[in-house]
Order: sequence, then structure tokens, then C-alpha cells
Amino acid sequence: MTLAVTPQSADRLQYSLQLVQRLIERQRELEAPPRSDDGEPGAASARENLAELRDKLAQLHPADIARVLEALPLEDRLLAWRLIEPLRDGAILLEVSDAVLESLVEAMAPGQLVAILAALDTDDMAELAPHLPRHVVYEAMGRLDEEARGQLQEVLSYEEDRVGALMDFELVKIRADVSCEVVLRYLRRFDELPNQTDKIFVTDEAGRLRGVLPIRKLLVSDPEAMVADAMATEVVSFHPDEPALDAAQAFERYDLVTAPVVDERGALLGRLTVDAMVDVIREEGDSEVLNLAGLKEEEDLFAPVMDSVRNRWAWLAINLCTAFFASRVIGAFEHSIAQLVALAALMPIVAGIGGNSGNQTITMIVRALAMGQMRTGQAGRLWRKELGVSVINGMVWGSVIGAVAWLLYGNVSLGLVMLAAMTLNLMLAATMGVLIPTLMQKLGKDPALGSSVLITACTDSGGFLIFLGLATLFLL
Amino acid sequence: MTLAVTPQSADRLQYSLQLVQRLIERQRELEAPPRSDDGEPGAASARENLAELRDKLAQLHPADIARVLEALPLEDRLLAWRLIEPLRDGAILLEVSDAVLESLVEAMAPGQLVAILAALDTDDMAELAPHLPRHVVYEAMGRLDEEARGQLQEVLSYEEDRVGALMDFELVKIRADVSCEVVLRYLRRFDELPNQTDKIFVTDEAGRLRGVLPIRKLLVSDPEAMVADAMATEVVSFHPDEPALDAAQAFERYDLVTAPVVDERGALLGRLTVDAMVDVIREEGDSEVLNLAGLKEEEDLFAPVMDSVRNRWAWLAINLCTAFFASRVIGAFEHSIAQLVALAALMPIVAGIGGNSGNQTITMIVRALAMGQMRTGQAGRLWRKELGVSVINGMVWGSVIGAVAWLLYGNVSLGLVMLAAMTLNLMLAATMGVLIPTLMQKLGKDPALGSSVLITACTDSGGFLIFLGLATLFLL
Repeated sequence: MTLAVTPQSADRLQYSLQLVQRLIERQRELEAPPRSDDGEPGAASARENLAELRDKLAQLHPADIARVLEALPLEDRLLAWRLIEPLRDGAILLEVSDAVLESLVEAMAPGQLVAILAALDTDDMAELAPHLPRHVVYEAMGRLDEEARGQLQEVLSYEEDRVGALMDFELVKIRADVSCEVVLRYLRRFDELPNQTDKIFVTDEAGRLRGVLPIRKLLVSDPEAMVADAMATEVVSFHPDEPALDAAQAFERYDLVTAPVVDERGALLGRLTVDAMVDVIREEGDSEVLNLAGLKEEEDLFAPVMDSVRNRWAWLAINLCTAFFASRVIGAFEHSIAQLVALAALMPIVAGIGGNSGNQTITMIVRALAMGQMRTGQAGRLWRKELGVSVINGMVWGSVIGAVAWLLYGNVSLGLVMLAAMTLNLMLAATMGVLIPTLMQKLGKDPALGSSVLITACTDSGGFLIFLGLATLFLL
Repeated sequence: MTLAVTPQSADRLQYSLQLVQRLIERQRELEAPPRSDDGEPGAASARENLAELRDKLAQLHPADIARVLEALPLEDRLLAWRLIEPLRDGAILLEVSDAVLESLVEAMAPGQLVAILAALDTDDMAELAPHLPRHVVYEAMGRLDEEARGQLQEVLSYEEDRVGALMDFELVKIRADVSCEVVLRYLRRFDELPNQTDKIFVTDEAGRLRGVLPIRKLLVSDPEAMVADAMATEVVSFHPDEPALDAAQAFERYDLVTAPVVDERGALLGRLTVDAMVDVIREEGDSEVLNLAGLKEEEDLFAPVMDSVRNRWAWLAINLCTAFFASRVIGAFEHSIAQLVALAALMPIVAGIGGNSGNQTITMIVRALAMGQMRTGQAGRLWRKELGVSVINGMVWGSVIGAVAWLLYGNVSLGLVMLAAMTLNLMLAATMGVLIPTLMQKLGKDPALGSSVLITACTDSGGFLIFLGLATLFLL
């Protein structure tokens, strides 16, 4: 069954979204109980409006419906969802964000979910399965043939962030000892080649990958030429246990469209396609941003309040602990503050600039480690460089703010303590900014995780300690 | 000229990098002036070592050499760069980060740069040109033929973030009134099809796009079938003035490999390819992260100290201003702090949690606006939701920290003020978190720019004001 779906530019998608929103608003108005003073029969026009909404949705590409559903509040989203042709449900569920997927799955009966799942390709089933109730997955699995079930189990056996979990089994395989003419005839027997087919995989009788025949080579080859001569044997291939992000970076480096996945014996297991890799790259960027902002995962914009609270509480709690620790550092100097209250007003400046500068350093180091641009052995060299940057920044900005403090409070020593504290806290920020991610990496942990919270904790507590400590020593 | 270059997995790339680093270290040792007490002649083995390094580099893919160069300190980078076959320079320059590109360009003579530039395809020239001295670009342009010069000028006429700037002119065009058999014969006359060719563009005599013929359709079509019948006429196409990010998101939504660029009259100007779109998606994620961390642009890890200072000073200066403002808010309450010093220790907690929570809200809203998932008209609804989240978080965490303050200072009113201040500051954070990006969007500005700094400024100053204000009213 083909559906008339039109892909859209960003502007037209925005326009479609607004149209859907207007139709839904109108539907709500038409369905509202009629007020006694107007006798207009709303039922007929409500049906018409609903039909218009259904038509509009039917014209949209599944990926565009996904964007529309994500932009609708929960009750509107479910209204639209119920109007969508059930055959398209699977394609749409594959496109929505995890949070929205959850809200749609909750609204569906297990029977519906089984039907949707069973209609998908193996790799799409594998993508959806982790988000569905276990019994639904088992029941859908029961409907598969032997081969597909084996493939699904294989894909599901890998962690989500591994190449194996993103494998696609729809690919074209040929032997090396046939001519290009034969290959072209063989291809013509397909109804349609698998999506994104840019190369054909050449295997031997044992199923081992011997090479790949790029379509763009095949099309310009002499029909008489043998595949063995036309194929490329230097192939970028991936192992199913490799991190998906490594594969995505290789796709980016080598401008790949598809690439084979092979096991340690060289047997062709499946392929990776660029669209899955684009998702990996975007999700990586997303998770970095969410992490920096203190969110556990991407949120449904219209999630119930309690869902949002759950998504955010962990980082808030950690932040509370570090803030409390910093507060105790200040508490230790209460006697000094009581004697010179200006200290209370000035101390957040020292801590704040330190946090800002530390975040700059740690972000650079974390990225360099993730890209493989930095070995932990180079930490010393980078530390010296960061110290240089921090001393210059400390002297410059410390002088500025020190001078302001001097003018404001008429106390030159206070200005000098400001200058010294700023410089020392920036040096601390540089040191911890290099040390924290390097240590995390050496310990086999993800250097990005919590880096921003950790460095801010160091520069807050450290900044208060340095500033109030120096002030106590030299000013009181 | 073909070069034996092997694409590599992440592990092997890491290994290659270490090998290059070792060879360079060894070179430095061998070239060091011999100490008087050891008469070993180092010149011969230095030459051998250099040859080994040259060979190793020659075996690497240009994109891998780019990664290696990025991971080398400046002097080592230039040593490696000089050993690379000049014919490959262009391909490598296209792959390195902007900061590293600058360091390499600085080390090259204008004549070399002209030669490199003139050897590239038009779209690659256009990519490199903005990073090169103007006179180099003009000289290279002079060496192009009429058509290529026109194409280059066209591409360069668009802003960097527009579709037009990323156009590629290497594509296959056919007419609609020929058979698939003829198309296949036509294709066979090419030496090689353009990279990533997944579709052929069908144009009329006026050069207007009539449709596209996906290769995967062509290969399964009856050779007798006419292109007009086999081609797809519903095509996702882009206008050169469209934002590149919109096009990249469309590539992601519709799993595209290539797509046509057409002007308002429907004339085919060029095409976009997925590898350029992957770069756009990654750069978007990068710039969000850099922005959140307060870096102007991606840094060369081994940049001279002053380059790093320049890249970072702007955000530090802004941060200093907002911190100074917050400090003046505290200054206004110095009298209160002098009477109850505990306030100084507790106030950073209120400000810190507010900043954390505000960053969570603003990140969500900024992302929703960027993805077109949120209209500014929905701000009211989202504000109410965020207020709900902030009241719950404020009551919970405010109670926790209020109880601790009570126990610590034996003052129950102080605990209650803590609770009230926390809740109010989180509500302020939620309000500003929705308001700032929505306003920026309405004013036509990028809602992401500086969002983190702005929200932190609000929650710092606001937090101090709320907490110290309440304390002054109720505790003194």
C-alpha cells in the first residue's frame, strides 16, 4: 500500500503544525456542550472538521506527524493519534522522541501494539521493542518466522549504544565470481532495493565478507567485468560490539552511506546505514547539552508536572549537596564576615568567575578526550597551558574587580586580596578542569558525566575558602 | 592518482595517532645536538625515522590525518604537515577543525595555497575559501574556467549557514523522455559517478527540475520503461536561501542521501549531500555545548595561551558584570548580614539551586523553539507547568535545606525563610526560563545565545534579593 505523503520544508511543516493545531482547537469548540442561547447544531460540523483533520494528517509524512505530535499537549496529541491510519502507526512511533513514545504507548491496547510491532522490519522492531511492555514484544516475536526471530534476538542482545543494536538486515549480497551484467539482472528481480543501498556486499560460500561493490562503480563498469575485479576490498567494516558513536564518527570521517557489520571471523552479519548514524550523532550532541543543563533525559514538553520533577530532581539534589558544602566553608569564616561585611558581598564574584572559567577548561578537555585528540599523558602539558590562561585572566579581571572593590569600600588591601583570590581561584579552576576529566578517563568512566557540577563545586567551595582565608589572614 | 589509504576503526586510529606521536618524539631526540660523551651518528637514523613517519602518514585517510594533526601540539603538527604529499593537502585542510586550519594556513606560502585551492572541486573550494587570505582566493579563481568560476561565485554569495553555501555541482542530469536503458548506457560513459549519487535529477529543456530517478528504482525498472514513468515527482527540494539547519533536519526526518537545490523558478542549481548535512548537525550540537560552556568557538587544544584568552574573554567579561551586579544586591543588605552572619553562609544555596533549575527550564524551551515544537503562543501554558514543577521542587528541597538550617543555627524562623526563599527563587527561575527565550524568539534573535548566562544572572541577583529581603523583613 502506498500512501500519498509529501515531505515538507521547515516552513511548510510549521504551517502544517499550525493548521493541525487550529483544527484541533476548532474541534474542541464544536464538541463543547452547546450553550442554551444558540441552537446551532454542532454535531455535523464537528464531524466535518474531524474529517478535515484526518485528511490533513493523512497527507503528512510519518516523520512530520511525529514532529506535530511532539508539539501537541497530551490530550490534543491523543486526539490526533486516534485519527491516524493504523497502518502508519509503526512508522510514526519510530520517529517520535522517547518521552512522547511513552505517552502514546500508554494510550494503546496491548493487542494494537502487537499488531504494530509485528508489521515492522526486524531492525525497526528492535528499535521499538525496548520501549514496549515485555509481553507485547514476546507476543509479536511469536508471529515472526525463524530467521527474523533469530535476527531480532541478535539485535536485542546488544546494549543500546553498540553497533549490533543498530544493525539492519535488509541488504543485497552477491558472489565474487559473477559478471556485472549478471548482478544487474539479479537486481532487476527485486521489487525495490533496500533503502539507502549504495553498495552491494560480496560474500563467499561461508558468508564471509570479501568486498563491496559500490553501485556507482557497478553502473559505470563494463557489463562483462567480473565482480571480483570491480569490487573494493579495502572496506570500512564494524564489529557489533563496537560503540555506535565510534561507527558514527567513522561514517562522518569517511562520508559513508552504508557499511557492513562483520563478526570476528569476517562473517557478514548486517549493515549500518547513515540515517541511523545521523541519529547517533544528534543524540550524542543532545545528551551533552542535557547533561550540561542538569537534565537526565529529553523531556516531553507537555509532560505532567510530576514526570518533569522526576527528570530533574537528581541533578538538583547533587547541586544542593555541593551548595551545602560551600555554605559550610563560608560558615567557618562567619567570624571574619561579621568583622568585615564587605566580604559577603564580594565572595560570590570570586566563586562565579572561577566556575565560568573552569567550565570553559573542562568542556575543552572533555571534548578532546571524546574525540580521541588527547591522551591522558598530555594532561601535564595542557595543564601548564591552562594555568597560563588562568593567570592572565586572573591578573586582568582580578585587577578590574579589585580596583572596583578598592573604590567602593575605600580599602586598598581589600582590592589586593580580591586580585589574589581571583587569580588563585582561576588557577584552581584550570587545575581541576584538566584533572577531573583526565582522572575519570583513567578510571574508565565517562569524563563528561557531571563534569559541570563537579567543577562548579570545586570553584565555589575553593573560591570561598581562598577569598575568605586570604581576607582573614591579611585584613583582620 | 590513487593513493593507498585505509579507513580505520576508532581503535586503529588511536593506535595510528600514538605511532605518529612516538615517531615524532623519536625524531626530536635524533635531531637533538649530540652530547659530547656519545659519538653515535644520529643523522642517518634521523633520516630513516623521518621516512617511516612519512610512510605512516601516506597510509592514512585524509580525514584520519586531520584527526592526527588536531591531536598534535603546534610544532609537531607542522613537522607532520610538511611530510604530507602536497596533492593530499587540500583533502586534509577540508577535514581539520577551523582552529587547526588556521594554524596550517599560517605556515604555508600563498603560492602553495593557490595551488591547493585551484585543484579542488567547486564546492570544496567554496568551503575552504572563507578561511584563506583574499588574494589567494582571487588568484585561484582566475585559474578556473568560466562555468566553475560562476558556480564558485554563486556559492560564495550565500551566508555560511544557508543551503546555497553548501551546494555541490557534481550531479547527473537526464531528460524525462528517454528510456531507463538509455539512462544506464549514458551512465556507463562516466568514469565514476559523483560521490553519494543515490538519485539522478530529471530536468526539462529550460533546466527546471521535473523529478528525480532514484538509483534503487532505476536498477529494478524495466529497461524499456520511460524515465517520466519511473521517476518520482514529489521531491524534497531546497531553496539556496533556506537555513542549512532546516535542510539538515529534513535530511534527518526523511532519511535523505542527496536532495536538489532549486531556485524560485524551479531551476535546478545544485544538490545537497548527506555528508555536508551531518557536519551541519554536529556543528549545531557543538555550538550549543560551546555556548553553554561560555566558549566563543571550538579551540585548537594546543593553541597559544593568548589565542585561548581571546576565545574566552567575552563570556568571562559578561559573567563578571552579572556577578558584580549580584554583589551590589548583597551590598544593599550588608546591614542585615552584619546582624545575622548566617545569612552570608546560606545565601549561595538559594542562588545556586535557582540557577540549576532555571538552566533546566531554559534548555528545554530553547530546544523546543529550535525544533519548531513550540509556538510563542504556548508560552503561557508552559509557564504554568514550569511553575508547578518549581513549586514542588521548592517545597521539597526548601524543606530539606530549611530543616538543616534550623538544626544548624537553632533558629526555626531562619529555616522558614530559607524554605520561602528557595520556593520563590525557583518560581523566578521558571518564569525567566520561559520568558527569556520566548521574548528573544519574538524579537527575531537566537533564543540560545547567552541563555545560560542570562538565566544565571537572574537567579543569582534575584535569589540574593529574595532571601536577604525576606530575612530583613522577618528575622531582624
